[in-house]
Formats: sequence, C-alpha cells, structure tokens
Amino acid sequence: MHGKVQTPVFLPVGSQATVRSLTPGDLDEIGIKMILCNAYHLYLRPGVDLIVKAGGLHKFMGWDKPILTDSGGYQIFSLSAFRKIAEDGVVFRSHIDGSEHRITPEKAVGIQQELGADIIMVLDVCPDSGSKKADLAATIPVTTRWAERCRQAYRDNGQLLFGIIQGGIYLGLRKTSAEQVTALDFPGYAIGGLSLGEPKSAMWDTVDCTVDLMPYDKPRYLMGVGSPEDIFEGVARGIDIFDSALPTRVARNGALYTRKGRINVRRSNYRDKLEPVEVSCGCFTCRNFTVAYLHHLFKCEELLAYRLATIHNLFFMNRLLGEIRGSLGSGRFEEAKADFLSGYQTTHEDARIEQKLRSVETKRRKALTDC
Amino acid sequence: MHGKVQTPVFLPVGSQATVRSLTPGDLDEIGIKMILCNAYHLYLRPGVDLIVKAGGLHKFMGWDKPILTDSGGYQIFSLSAFRKIAEDGVVFRSHIDGSEHRITPEKAVGIQQELGADIIMVLDVCPDSGSKKADLAATIPVTTRWAERCRQAYRDNGQLLFGIIQGGIYLGLRKTSAEQVTALDFPGYAIGGLSLGEPKSAMWDTVDCTVDLMPYDKPRYLMGVGSPEDIFEGVARGIDIFDSALPTRVARNGALYTRKGRINVRRSNYRDKLEPVEVSCGCFTCRNFTVAYLHHLFKCEELLAYRLATIHNLFFMNRLLGEIRGSLGSGRFEEAKADFLSGYQTTHEDARIEQKLRSVETKRRKALTDC
Repeated sequence: MHGKVQTPVFLPVGSQATVRSLTPGDLDEIGIKMILCNAYHLYLRPGVDLIVKAGGLHKFMGWDKPILTDSGGYQIFSLSAFRKIAEDGVVFRSHIDGSEHRITPEKAVGIQQELGADIIMVLDVCPDSGSKKADLAATIPVTTRWAERCRQAYRDNGQLLFGIIQGGIYLGLRKTSAEQVTALDFPGYAIGGLSLGEPKSAMWDTVDCTVDLMPYDKPRYLMGVGSPEDIFEGVARGIDIFDSALPTRVARNGALYTRKGRINVRRSNYRDKLEPVEVSCGCFTCRNFTVAYLHHLFKCEELLAYRLATIHNLFFMNRLLGEIRGSLGSGRFEEAKADFLSGYQTTHEDARIEQKLRSVETKRRKALTDC
Repeated sequence: MHGKVQTPVFLPVGSQATVRSLTPGDLDEIGIKMILCNAYHLYLRPGVDLIVKAGGLHKFMGWDKPILTDSGGYQIFSLSAFRKIAEDGVVFRSHIDGSEHRITPEKAVGIQQELGADIIMVLDVCPDSGSKKADLAATIPVTTRWAERCRQAYRDNGQLLFGIIQGGIYLGLRKTSAEQVTALDFPGYAIGGLSLGEPKSAMWDTVDCTVDLMPYDKPRYLMGVGSPEDIFEGVARGIDIFDSALPTRVARNGALYTRKGRINVRRSNYRDKLEPVEVSCGCFTCRNFTVAYLHHLFKCEELLAYRLATIHNLFFMNRLLGEIRGSLGSGRFEEAKADFLSGYQTTHEDARIEQKLRSVETKRRKALTDC
C-alpha cells in the first residue's frame, strides 16, 4: 500500500496514467491522496507488459500515493465498439484501433494485479442505463459469478479487491446483486452502473436502497459520481469513496467551481475580472492568476488554461471533502451540507452536454493525431 | 527593468502572454531569464486596455523577469489576412475575427509602452521572403522612416526601444537599411526578415554582412532564429539575442532535443525506453519521467505530453546558452561549437513541415473552439 487515505474521499480520474494536464507534483500540491486509473485504457495502451517492466503503475507515472484501478467493466460497455458477453467473459473491440480482445474475470484481476494499484475492482457487466429490466436482470447472476471468479483468481499481495453491485435503477435487482456480492466477503464494495443518464431522484433512491444492504464496516464506493452537490448527497447516505471525471472535464471547458456554483470563465463578462476565481481559495491558480487571465487563455485556447482550471476544480473538490470530513468528525455534517447547498447553485449536467464535451475532446485528439 | 540578462540569450516565445503549456514558475525553474511576447497578439486579444488595468503585462501573466515585445511588424505580414501599407502605417484584418485595424509607428510604440515590456521593437515592414528585390527595396526607406517616427514617439521610461534592419537576403539592401537605422542611435538593433524560408547559406551570408554594419557595443538581436545549431552559428557571428518558437513548437510535436540531435518520442521504437530523454539532463521531465511514459502520453494525446516536452526543450536550450556563455568567457567558444556540432545531427526544418505543424495547432484550436 502507498499510504492511508481518509474517507470520504474524492478520486480524480487519470484513466491513462495521467490526470489530464497535471503532474503528480501538481496533484500532491493540491492535496490529492488517491487517484483512479483505468485498467481498460492501460491494458490497451501502453500495455500491461510495459508498465510491469517500468516497475508498476506508480513508477510508470511517477505517483507514489494510492491508486484505484477500475476493472474495465464500465469502459468495455461505454467505449468499445463491439462487445459480446458470454458466461466466460467479454469480447470487445478496442476504441483505439478496433483490435479484438477477450477479457475474463481472471484476466481482469490478473491485469490489475500486475499494474499494482492499491484498490482493484472485480469485472462486472455494466449495461446501458436505458436497458430493460429483463435484460438487466439476466446480467445480475453473471456479475455475481464473475465476482466470485475474480475472488478466486486474486492472489493476496496487499491489494484490496472490491466487489461491485449492479442492477440499474431497479431496487429488486440491486437487492439481489447486493446480497449475492456481499456474501462473497470482499474488503470493500462499490455501487456501479449509476450516473449514466437516469434521473437524479432514481439514482439516489437506488443508492438509498443499496447502501442499506452493504456492510457498515467496509468502504462503500459510489462509482462515477462526483459533482459537489452529489458528494454531499452521497456522504449523507454513507458513501466513502467517489470518483468522477466531471470536475476535470468541465474545468477543461472553462467551468470553475465556486461556493456559489460553477462559473464559466470563457463568458465575456469575465474578460475584465481582475480577481482570482475565488478570493478565499488557496489553490495555485487563485494565488497567482486572475479570472481575466484565465478568460484570455481560454479564448486563445492556450494549453495553460486547461491546467490552471483543472488545478482549481480539484483543489475545490479536495477542500470540500476535507470540510465534509471535519464536519463528520464534529457531528455537524447535516449543518455543513445545508449550508453548502443553500449557497450553491447546481448546474444540472445532462447527457447532451456530457456528450458534447466528450466529442470536443475527441475532435481535439483527432486533430492532434493528424500531425 | 525586471532584472539583468546575460547574453547571448535565447528567448522562448509566449506570444499570447503565456509560453504554451507552462507557468511562469515552470520557466523560472528551467532557468529562463527573459521571454518574448507579441504586441500584435496582445493588442488584438485580450486588448491593451485590460493589460494596463491589470498593472501591465508582467502582472497580467505573473512573470516578473524581463520581457521583450515584438512590435507586430512580422505578425501583420505573416498572420493577418489583408494588409495595406501606406506611408502613414499599415491597415490589416485581425486573424481572429477579421476586424480591421490600423497601426502606425506611433501606435506600435504606444501599445508596447503601455504593455510595459523591458525591450520593445520599432514597427517595420516585413515583406514575404519570396519578395522581388525591387519590391523589397521600396520598403527599406519606409522601414527607416517608421523607425525614426518610433524613436520620436517613444517616451523614455526605462524601456529599451530597438531598431530593426530589413532587406531580405539582398546584401545591398541590408547595407542601406543598416546604415539608415543605426544612424538613428537606438540602444540595440535587430536583424529582421530572416529564417522565412530562404536557404540557410543565404541567411548566414546576410547575417555576416549585416552584423559588420551594426555597432559593436550594442545588443544584436537575430529575430526568429533559434535551433541549437543556428544559435552556435549566430553567436559565432556576434549575435546576442535570439528568439524562436521552434523549440517549443517541435516539442509539442514530440521532437525532443538531445546532444545527438532531435528524437521524436512518438516513434514506436521509443515505446519501451524506460530511461529519461537524456540521462545527463537535469530538467524536471528527465528527472521524473521516462521516454516510454512520454511516448505513451503523446500516443494518447494527453495534455501533459506537451508540457513535459516543452520543459525539456527549453531546458536544453537554456543550458546550451549557458555553456556558450561559459565558453565565450574562457575563450573556447570555437572549440565548444565544433564539439557540439560534430555530435549533433541537424534536423532541417523546411517550410512544408513548419506549415504542417502550424496547421495542426490551428486545427486543434478550432476543435476546441467548437465547444
């Protein structure tokens, strides 16, 4: 293990062994204690062999604090072009070059054990959020059997292998999945397959129901959820670990968090704002640069824009989690939550905006590939 | 003034008040003592009024060491879509939004005095490198009269206003321009209008001839030139100041400097190279990351790639200039030059590659604008 982590904690996403635009030193300065990388991405590129040769994922990317790797379950279903699930495992085509790959639960664990993350995840079936109940129901026993096979394949070297509970927004399916997966006695459990386009109320109803079926004394991880307001809602329900690409992705689009809600510094009314994003913020960006300068960098599409914005949003998230931990310690969490939410104007992400942001990133990557 | 600068010196280019992907702190850690910004870019965006309100260019961008601003002469001729030169000044269309602008010598100096750079440049006529001799000849007296008007408009506040000698690769024109401009008694002089596609031999013949006509006791600045081998050739001819976007631009394309020449870390043979770019290099990138990791970041088009590569190339340039200054001090420059050039395999930039690199950058900017 690479250090202790206090919970609740938010993990920035560094799928490809880098939190976009930041060095490990930047993350450290922000105060980040743990990040998420994706076994799916790293298996495809640069390949597990190379990372093993480099001495493991921590050494490869120069980050000496804890890492959690996702197994690839979600990525195979959201990113890869073609996929076929069988009892044995999943066959999919790489989103990079179309090559065909087959991942079994055993292989998913093997990959993550070789990468050497501190927390690793079982391989799960993570269907589209629009799936019909009957289709989803059919995948629950597969997810359970895969979890069991992952547990069998796991060789104890100090890494923690977490189980994943699926079931979409169907409380009955969640109940089945939770009972079956927790019976396998993992050291921690995740709620997967949420924040995929379903209404917020359905998501929280599902979390409410699922959390009740998870052991109280083991870490509970809500995968893919991480807006400031969602963190409060999740913590209120007993969630310990969150991850989401949202704070870093919206940062690269110019949307910066403040206590009052997100502001988009690319808007013309920020051209002249010769103040930090938040006067009370202690992040590197706010200590050194004005909103007007950030506005200028975004307007020019200068690379520094993405970095400075990312630093601010991660600092905001990290500070928020620190405050939440403090309020839990002093028994004043509900007060802190009410206080934050009363001042914070929520920006509702919808699938359309998310899709647009992703497509811009893809276009940029494509443009760069041409050279 | 914001500090002393030892010459010969290489200035990284930060046209838009940022050296692409780097913070002022990064530049400082690399050892950079002075940078170049472009009055043309900053006048168009974010506008001089805002930078004045921010307390000047240094404060706006958070860089407290010397800055040189180019007047915009070159940019108006290379970037703007439409331009019309008259005796009074130049009318052009912004490359950003097509808006029409008129810049006179007086305005060019006024802008730069407001921006507050430490060294500022006269407005010059900087024709295409393919211009006919007769066309070029007609612009020489205009450049001279503009230089005189700049000198008249300049209000002494400690900034240094440099003259610019033009004349393409025609030695007779260079002689005329040098005689006329140096007669105006500026505190420093630049050779403009080179490195624009002419053969290297013609460029150096021109520098040879022009340098002889420039005062020995004032700084001599060769504009837009800055490959490692060209630095040696320029210093050998008595040049004190260089600037070029080349080291940073090729870095963003994956081309990293070594003592043996440039390597492109995107090439597949670097996938497994678990060593720094140069074992003997003390830059942040080489101290912390391997070529294999850089290769991975470039393959993924991760933003961190551009930053780590830029840091390495600027560190390489800065160290090289330090070695050159050392060798000049000990009277062993010729030896150092022969030693470097014998081991260094030159990469010949040609206009086609340069064009391609620029077009990729433009495409990426365009892709990002869409969001």
